[in-house]
Amino acid sequence: MIFSSDNWAGAHPAIAESLVANAQGYASAYGTSELDRRVEQRFSEIFERDVAVFFVGTGTAANSLALSSANRAGGIAFCHREAHVNVDECGAPEFFSHGARLCPVEGARGRMEPAKLEAEIRRFPRENVHGGQPMAVTLTQATESGAVYSLDQIETIGSIARSHKLPLHMDGARFANALVSLGTTPAEMTWKRGVDLLSFGGTKNGCWCAEALVLFDLSKAQEMHFLRKRSAQLFSKSRFVAAQFDAYLAGDLWLDLARHANAMAQRLADGITASAGSRLAWAPDANEVFVVLKREAAGRLQRQGALFYDWEVPHDLEGSLAEDEGLYRLVTSFATRAEDVDRFVAAC
Amino acid sequence: MIFSSDNWAGAHPAIAESLVANAQGYASAYGTSELDRRVEQRFSEIFERDVAVFFVGTGTAANSLALSSANRAGGIAFCHREAHVNVDECGAPEFFSHGARLCPVEGARGRMEPAKLEAEIRRFPRENVHGGQPMAVTLTQATESGAVYSLDQIETIGSIARSHKLPLHMDGARFANALVSLGTTPAEMTWKRGVDLLSFGGTKNGCWCAEALVLFDLSKAQEMHFLRKRSAQLFSKSRFVAAQFDAYLAGDLWLDLARHANAMAQRLADGITASAGSRLAWAPDANEVFVVLKREAAGRLQRQGALFYDWEVPHDLEGSLAEDEGLYRLVTSFATRAEDVDRFVAAC
Amino acid sequence: MIFSSDNWAGAHPAIAESLVANAQGYASAYGTSELDRRVEQRFSEIFERDVAVFFVGTGTAANSLALSSANRAGGIAFCHREAHVNVDECGAPEFFSHGARLCPVEGARGRMEPAKLEAEIRRFPRENVHGGQPMAVTLTQATESGAVYSLDQIETIGSIARSHKLPLHMDGARFANALVSLGTTPAEMTWKRGVDLLSFGGTKNGCWCAEALVLFDLSKAQEMHFLRKRSAQLFSKSRFVAAQFDAYLAGDLWLDLARHANAMAQRLADGITASAGSRLAWAPDANEVFVVLKREAAGRLQRQGALFYDWEVPHDLEGSLAEDEGLYRLVTSFATRAEDVDRFVAAC
Amino acid sequence: MIFSSDNWAGAHPAIAESLVANAQGYASAYGTSELDRRVEQRFSEIFERDVAVFFVGTGTAANSLALSSANRAGGIAFCHREAHVNVDECGAPEFFSHGARLCPVEGARGRMEPAKLEAEIRRFPRENVHGGQPMAVTLTQATESGAVYSLDQIETIGSIARSHKLPLHMDGARFANALVSLGTTPAEMTWKRGVDLLSFGGTKNGCWCAEALVLFDLSKAQEMHFLRKRSAQLFSKSRFVAAQFDAYLAGDLWLDLARHANAMAQRLADGITASAGSRLAWAPDANEVFVVLKREAAGRLQRQGALFYDWEVPHDLEGSLAEDEGLYRLVTSFATRAEDVDRFVAAC
Repeated sequence: MIFSSDNWAGAHPAIAESLVANAQGYASAYGTSELDRRVEQRFSEIFERDVAVFFVGTGTAANSLALSSANRAGGIAFCHREAHVNVDECGAPEFFSHGARLCPVEGARGRMEPAKLEAEIRRFPRENVHGGQPMAVTLTQATESGAVYSLDQIETIGSIARSHKLPLHMDGARFANALVSLGTTPAEMTWKRGVDLLSFGGTKNGCWCAEALVLFDLSKAQEMHFLRKRSAQLFSKSRFVAAQFDAYLAGDLWLDLARHANAMAQRLADGITASAGSRLAWAPDANEVFVVLKREAAGRLQRQGALFYDWEVPHDLEGSLAEDEGLYRLVTSFATRAEDVDRFVAAC
Repeated sequence: MIFSSDNWAGAHPAIAESLVANAQGYASAYGTSELDRRVEQRFSEIFERDVAVFFVGTGTAANSLALSSANRAGGIAFCHREAHVNVDECGAPEFFSHGARLCPVEGARGRMEPAKLEAEIRRFPRENVHGGQPMAVTLTQATESGAVYSLDQIETIGSIARSHKLPLHMDGARFANALVSLGTTPAEMTWKRGVDLLSFGGTKNGCWCAEALVLFDLSKAQEMHFLRKRSAQLFSKSRFVAAQFDAYLAGDLWLDLARHANAMAQRLADGITASAGSRLAWAPDANEVFVVLKREAAGRLQRQGALFYDWEVPHDLEGSLAEDEGLYRLVTSFATRAEDVDRFVAAC
Repeated sequence: MIFSSDNWAGAHPAIAESLVANAQGYASAYGTSELDRRVEQRFSEIFERDVAVFFVGTGTAANSLALSSANRAGGIAFCHREAHVNVDECGAPEFFSHGARLCPVEGARGRMEPAKLEAEIRRFPRENVHGGQPMAVTLTQATESGAVYSLDQIETIGSIARSHKLPLHMDGARFANALVSLGTTPAEMTWKRGVDLLSFGGTKNGCWCAEALVLFDLSKAQEMHFLRKRSAQLFSKSRFVAAQFDAYLAGDLWLDLARHANAMAQRLADGITASAGSRLAWAPDANEVFVVLKREAAGRLQRQGALFYDWEVPHDLEGSLAEDEGLYRLVTSFATRAEDVDRFVAAC
Repeated sequence: MIFSSDNWAGAHPAIAESLVANAQGYASAYGTSELDRRVEQRFSEIFERDVAVFFVGTGTAANSLALSSANRAGGIAFCHREAHVNVDECGAPEFFSHGARLCPVEGARGRMEPAKLEAEIRRFPRENVHGGQPMAVTLTQATESGAVYSLDQIETIGSIARSHKLPLHMDGARFANALVSLGTTPAEMTWKRGVDLLSFGGTKNGCWCAEALVLFDLSKAQEMHFLRKRSAQLFSKSRFVAAQFDAYLAGDLWLDLARHANAMAQRLADGITASAGSRLAWAPDANEVFVVLKREAAGRLQRQGALFYDWEVPHDLEGSLAEDEGLYRLVTSFATRAEDVDRFVAAC
């Protein structure tokens, strides 16, 4: 009953096997091997256009490099208040961008409200040098609250960014979960809606350590080679990342894994809805379920071996919980078993 | 006949197996799993004292974090002119340390000459604010020229650093190769000789992606947690690095692999010495062999499938090569086969 | 009727004369002249203890260097939401501190509410590496809203900082105005209440370009020499700053100038209170007056030659203005004439 | 007999008077006053084309901002080994550019030798991400050795920079001294020879604190506003810098002052050439004289009140001094009196 996070799972067998299969033999280093090239090409196929792909080690690295690619002096990047870049990366975006600032935007379920995004950007007119200057917009798909921006919602954010000449970055640590939730294609969910840079995550969905920064604007690729190397993210045996993605993307494994994770989340949500002692805080779109439990019940579940985290009550839900209730996050993954879900629900 | 670099090899089967064995099941993320803890503890045993260990993804990250830990405003770190930090890391040490500067020191075979190190440090007296201030000394063991500092030589560098109150960092990308070359212990080669911070490399010696920053001064550990996270080097599934080191360090596998690589280098050196058409530029201490060949012979070898790099003639050898000769670097690894060495020598 | 800002005024004649008097002759450069030393010593007298003084060119530099002195990886500095460092310095604090972050704290009139400061600090427990780590608290005296922290209020903020082992910085761009408002001594308003670093401003109160960073913790002074030089704030003819402070501090000129500015603000406030068409948003403590005017009246005043800025309505006053009203800021200075105040009031 | 440095002098009376004349009255802050605008316009006249001008407080700031304007990840700026940016700025260029690196180039008298510059740039081909990437060339006019690049020499450096698509920066801390030495115009010495960015110094030639960063490429101006503000170099009472330049540039005062300083240097050189006990190390082009003296004679002169600095013997003069001789630098300025020069020569 481990619902702590999708990064508590290990690696999918097919991905582990791909690594073993590529353990032998020699390959040119630092991302220049045939395998690297082939897998990079695979991204262009998946996104239905030429893209520049940069393998890196962590989602934080992908996000921070994306923002540093858009860097300006006194730069300000707009993100949701609960975004990973804003609350969970220990200042990495600021470090990579030499002190650019993140400006938090409000909105329910981790999605920036377009009007609020527009209002925040307008607070920083270019002629006021004291306030700094807007440099990028970044959204998270799926959000930290397990919600998924619809294609229209992405389009709206994209058009706001474009109207201010700001690049739009998507933090896709849970890209696959969002994609299968919407039932759309990678192209539709990204560049066709105005996304310029994408952190394409594999780690949370069955890889060990496989993240890719995808640039749809090829003119930014040349500098990114140096940005990545300079930040110590160019692996000498880069092919071990490529090998993971090779198996991950083959035969739509990545989509199957995400579908499973989402289905387990839905099963959990259904069970909770039907249960007497718990209720959903809101319906899940992807693989994160937020549940309201009496604190006592949460403690009891944890003593029975269930692992999950307390969660800060978002602004728009403040006051909706009883005194003795808490908000809890449950995350499912490619490795979640239906029986564990059912045990949890039964114990609720 | 691939002698391009030790990072062209893949992973040793035992290390790949360890990864597969740890692919299943759940583990707490971000370096907090039992496996992480156990492998960290293993480092303390190996170094015969409590050490703080930080797994990172690349040697560049380990080196840069080590230097950033010693950072000062206007700081200057002293290294050999040919050191990896100085020529092969695209400014990562400067980036991680917010603009600290590397001051190159001369010396044969990649080893800093103590008198020259002392003289360089003295060029920056603390009372001259314009010149900046010394902040660290870093040496590479084994060096980029395949030489190994003797224990006495490390001691000498260490005492110079200490006399100026500077921490001493060792770039041990090829730590194991140096260790078995000297036939000594990790403790003797590091903190007993004045080393304060160590980049302990596993990648070049049979791992996929396993580097550890080892701090002998535990008072620096608290800040390093934030430095590592802030630079995007804290892996969520950190245990996949731990699993590599687990196999790497078990039963002295790491020493066996390094002994093999060094033996292959020696076999290569012996063959070249005996050959008619080539000569050693200098005798190898570890797993890098530098050979003088007629350019024409080098071209012929490459056309026969041998892979190796041209090398810049070091300052102290300038003028010792004939017009039609070049200097070439051959690197052996855990994966080098004696038959490939012999084929190369035969073709020389 | 120029009430735009106190930095629209020029220099007080005594300060201009001091510069002229020091224009001739030679003096050793980069802050080492006798005049520099003598004026630095004067600060120790004024603060009744040994202090380390660093002349810099702008208040932004003093603030940013102060924060960089407290810098930590993933560091977070706590300030009021409306603080100059947070809204008017184009990311300089973040740049100087390599990406440290400012965490805004709420409170009326630009003063951080102690309970909210405490709550914000507690959001970042040291064991959560993802969130970053607290590094400093900074308060503004007088605040951007023209309020002055009482000695007890500074003491309270100081004890919160101390309880979390965080240094306390005071942005004293309007230090003199606050000091005479409280009728206290520099020592009482700073280190005796827990202030560790002070930006001591002269520019807004009659100097041309004279700011001093004052360190009460002398152990931080050695590194600050390099931090200042490295950030291009060590003037070769540093004595031209010293000469300004020499006249500024002589015979309590600085206090007289601040008293005048504050008195003009009070005269303005009294006139507005008595006027029919305008009202004070809140009573001024120092030299900034915030007035509520009908927009139409504001436009009329501006057409009559009055210069002043629109101001964003602070959170706690939202909803208290009528549709056709605006909030405006009027700043007085050493150069403000009573007749201009009276003309403005008459025109209100 | 003060020949320590030209920044030991104070301010020229006309410049001090201009400050006093502008002390009164109000002016809009942060570089937006009429005086600021008028003086900026004056630069366009002097340079015979539209230029963007940014007043800053120190030469280090101007140089560092210029380089940060050309910044790239892993960037490398090429300068003479003895350049001020390389030896006297405590890492400010690296700090402002987030870790870009300075690559020293050799050449006599502080002038980069074109062939060596070309060779150094070629060491960093863009396809080798490990080595970093060239980002700028910077030359000093006049050099730290008192030499002046001829127009042809600047053209040559400029064409090398252009051929590698690198912007060329000129550190003109002693711009006026070089200009009158060549008897040319500002336009001829800068953009007509390929200079893209210029640090235009006033401080060493009679101002107190007046430096200007001049951009010939206007497309870089927008970002520079933010770079300057972000680095704390935008003065609120910016007009006090403008007032200095106003007097400095009026009626060619700046050229007169430089001519005087250069003439004093020539008088010193002539006297030394004619003296028995000393000799010129090389002939001066501007206002710095390098003299070889017996150490004993130098000590005697210093005891008689002469102030001047020991100087490191440049590479190309090594071995040309006797055991008991030293190299010394004497700097003249607008304030140097003929009688002091003559007293010095007589005492030699």
